[in-house]
Amino acid sequence: MHVTLVYVHVKPERVDDFIAAMRANHEASVQEHGNRRFDVLRDPADPARFCIYEAYATEADAKAHKLTAHYITWRDQVADMMAEPRTGVTWSGLFPAG
Amino acid sequence: MHVTLVYVHVKPERVDDFIAAMRANHEASVQEHGNRRFDVLRDPADPARFCIYEAYATEADAKAHKLTAHYITWRDQVADMMAEPRTGVTWSGLFPAG
Repeated sequence: MHVTLVYVHVKPERVDDFIAAMRANHEASVQEHGNRRFDVLRDPADPARFCIYEAYATEADAKAHKLTAHYITWRDQVADMMAEPRTGVTWSGLFPAG
Repeated sequence: MHVTLVYVHVKPERVDDFIAAMRANHEASVQEHGNRRFDVLRDPADPARFCIYEAYATEADAKAHKLTAHYITWRDQVADMMAEPRTGVTWSGLFPAG
């Protein structure tokens, strides 16, 4: 399992817009080939900070996500909602296997 | 969904022992009431660093995990495998809902 944690800091006045865009991206992404998780998390201490936990069976599946129409729509929608650039951290899944 | 990310740095010579203990904890934890994920991740840049992604339906379910026999066994097994104290970060799940 190929995992990416994406940390997002949103402009406070755009939080509701971001959540709506994120919901659409979540609903489409969980139906992708090889997707295992696409969990959208919020920081309990700061409602403008989010973490997206994206897990795919393989790195190729994760890369294919960035070519989907719903990813490209989301990327363009949220571009001016960011308070600062997103950061991503990659992990390798041990368990569950496969 | 109540999520905790636990960051673990293991003594290099105890990595194999840690993975064996972690596998047993994973296999039992995913069968707990309210468990949604119990993913064990490894840092691709440092084989002695791990992240456990624990998601439960409710905070009460997450707390109940720490009362299980398999958690207590794991906690005691890994106590002297740590290179430094574990740290945990809590998130609230937005999607998937529930």
